[in-house]
This record gives sequence, C-alpha cells and structure tokens, in this order.
Amino acid sequence: MEISYLGSAFYGFQKQKSAYTVQGLLEDTLQKITEEKIKVVGAGRTDRGVHALAQVCNFQTACDLPPEKIKDALNALLPLEVRVNHAREVPQNFHARRCVKGKLYAYLVWTEEVMSPFLLNFSYHYPYPMEAGRIRSALDKVVGEHDFCSFAKAGVYKGGTIRVIQGARLIEDEHLLCFLIQGAGFLQHMVRTIVGTVLEVGRGRFEPEQILEILAKRNRSAAGPTAPACGLYLVRVIY
Amino acid sequence: MEISYLGSAFYGFQKQKSAYTVQGLLEDTLQKITEEKIKVVGAGRTDRGVHALAQVCNFQTACDLPPEKIKDALNALLPLEVRVNHAREVPQNFHARRCVKGKLYAYLVWTEEVMSPFLLNFSYHYPYPMEAGRIRSALDKVVGEHDFCSFAKAGVYKGGTIRVIQGARLIEDEHLLCFLIQGAGFLQHMVRTIVGTVLEVGRGRFEPEQILEILAKRNRSAAGPTAPACGLYLVRVIY
Repeated sequence: MEISYLGSAFYGFQKQKSAYTVQGLLEDTLQKITEEKIKVVGAGRTDRGVHALAQVCNFQTACDLPPEKIKDALNALLPLEVRVNHAREVPQNFHARRCVKGKLYAYLVWTEEVMSPFLLNFSYHYPYPMEAGRIRSALDKVVGEHDFCSFAKAGVYKGGTIRVIQGARLIEDEHLLCFLIQGAGFLQHMVRTIVGTVLEVGRGRFEPEQILEILAKRNRSAAGPTAPACGLYLVRVIY
Repeated sequence: MEISYLGSAFYGFQKQKSAYTVQGLLEDTLQKITEEKIKVVGAGRTDRGVHALAQVCNFQTACDLPPEKIKDALNALLPLEVRVNHAREVPQNFHARRCVKGKLYAYLVWTEEVMSPFLLNFSYHYPYPMEAGRIRSALDKVVGEHDFCSFAKAGVYKGGTIRVIQGARLIEDEHLLCFLIQGAGFLQHMVRTIVGTVLEVGRGRFEPEQILEILAKRNRSAAGPTAPACGLYLVRVIY
C-alpha cells in the first residue's frame, strides 16, 4: 500500500504500546477488516511529526478481499489524517523495508521574516539571510558513501553508521527552500541534521568545506542542530 | 496592515460578541499595545473558515509607536494562526473597505479519488470526472456586470445585488483545480456559489450556457451548491 499521513497527528510511524502511531492504527483497523491479527511493515519508520506523501507498507493476510476493497475499507475507517492512496497484491517475498533501493525525503524551510500561518506544522521557520550557493556546495559534500555518525542521533546502529546519499539538492522558491535528499538508507535524524547543518552553512556559521571535517569527526556534537520534524516529508520509496 | 490568517482557526473576520474572530482578536490585542480602544476596518469580511493570504485592514491611533513596532508587537502577542505581514502609515482618508477597487479570491479543489491529508482544511474534495473546457466556458459567463442574486446567500443587500466580476479563470494542476476570481465587490457566499455551480457544469449537471439563465432567474435555488469555506482564500486587495 502507498499511504500518506500528516505527521503532526501521530507519535511517529512505529507502533508503541501507549501512543497513537500510524502502524498501530493501521494494524488495529486491518484487524477489524480482515478479522485477523495483522503485522504491517513500513518502508521507513518516520519519527514523530514527520509527514509522508507516499510511505509504502505491506502486510500478509488470508482474507480474500481484493486490494481495492481493502483500500476503500481502510479509508472509510481511518481518520482523515492518514489515507491509503493505492493498494495492490505483491509477491510473498516483497518486504516494504528490506527491499528498499532508495528513499526520497523533502525538507521545507520558510525564510520570510514573518511565518506563514499556512505552513505552521508544514515547514521550519528559519528567517535568516542565506546564500544558496554555500548551501549547495555543502550539500554536494554529503553525497556518496560516508560515515554519517556526526549527522545522526547518538545511539547504536545495527550494521554501523556508514550510509550512501544518492542525491542532495536545493530548490528555491520566493520564501521557501525545498531540500530533496535521496539515500539508500538513513540513520535516525540524519536528514534533519544534514538540513540543520547546511542551513548554518548558508548563514555563514560553518564553511561548506567543513562538512568533510564534521563527517570525519564521527561525533554528533560536531554538526549543527537537528532541524524540526515538521519540515520533513517522506516523498517516495524506490524499489 | 496586510495580514494573513488560517480561516479554520476563527469564526470569520467580523467581530461577534461571543465568538473568536480575527477583528475581535486584533482589536483586543491593539488595545493592549496602544492602551486605546481601537476599531479595526477590514477590506473584506471573510466568512467563518475562509482563509486570507493578504487581507488588508486599517485603524486609527494616537499612539506614536512606528508601524513596524506595532507589527512586531502584534506578532508577538497574537496566536500563530494570524500574522501581520506588513504595516505602514496611511493618509487619514484611507478606508480599508470603502477604498477597495478589487479583491482577488482563489478557490482550491482537490479532484483525486483519495483526499490529501495535507489539504484537509485547505481545499474542497470534489473527486468527479470533469471537463475543464466546460468550466472555463461557464466562468466566462459570470465575468462583467450582472445581478448575482442567484449566486448569493438569500438576504437583503444594501445597494442591491448587482456586482462586477473583473476576471474569472481556472488553473489546473495534477490533482488540483485553482479558481481565481476577481471582482469589485462580492455578495455573501458569491465566490463559493459560483465555484459550486461551475463545478457542476464541469461534471455535466448544467450546461455552460445555463449560467446566463441562472443569473436571469434572480433566485438562489436556480444555482448549484455553495462550495465549502475551507477552499476559499482572499489573495489580494487592490486599491
């Protein structure tokens, strides 16, 4: 299934015992529809407050409702903050997370002095003079395979902290910056810490070249702040 | 002052004794800043749920704070659902409503089968097959001076029900229709009833030519439904 959801309405994707989560809600609702205990696998475990335009998830069921009917039943039972855009049958060996080739995230930044009431929970208000050229030059430095330890929430990561960024670019609109960052996989807070750091570069607090030093330090405290969850969108999952 | 606000956060622009309104909130907040009783005049009294990207309003004060400081004080005291974008001094004879030459409204319609959670309070979900050519042809018929009685909330209008539509056009995006309607003045619900009716034309329930008959009938029941407030935006006021 491809689903979209308003991050601000949930305590993140991943099921938690005593919090309202996307996965928890999907599993409860699918249980009502199929009368089976369902386990939903998501392509990415988006954090609390992070939005999804096209999260992908899969589940197994013995129920013989066609996918289109399951989609309609879910959309009828789910709150409007989460929607199933498409649903189809996949081979038994499909796994929404393990089969991922890449994930594209967008991050929106509102740069005007006065915040737009329309983007309150949908972008990060960062009203400082910035040079786009400096930001682009910093973004270029994160592309490729690196140890992203400095750009991740401190913690232990299965399989280490080396990841591949497939592309990182900046689109400018009048009062809006849109970052597009695609990678084969991400550490926790990685996109938000990259954005928080390259914004500081744009503002002149770091030099673009320092990104390489920050990567080399393998220490979270070397990088800039973590940009808030409300600006982040899971845009596309590539298989 | 030019202000923007989230329509869904207020019971409309115009002050009401026991409801949370934009005008009421501005007057209360300006009283705290200036220590005077302030009357705010708005260019348009947007209805409950209608958004504004650039509403214009004016007020008189003897307080000698420069406009920029009043703007900052308002933005510090007001909730984030309403923002003052600009403020400047104007001649004594400026009146935000009486001096209006035109107002531009936008109306957003989401046409995909599944609603976007991101446009829940920001557009009208109308997931039906439509022909843009039919809608454009219907829109052409409302441009100019007409008696818009059929397209207004039933009631008594000071100065009658004749109004001038200066322009009406449709922009199509992938899953979104954006109507842009500019007029010298509007009756209550007029933009929403025009949109509600031309959508029915797009869907084949009326013919474009019938718009002229509906106008001629001078009867609200001749037109289509009133599209909901959440899709409507006051975009610009022309002086």
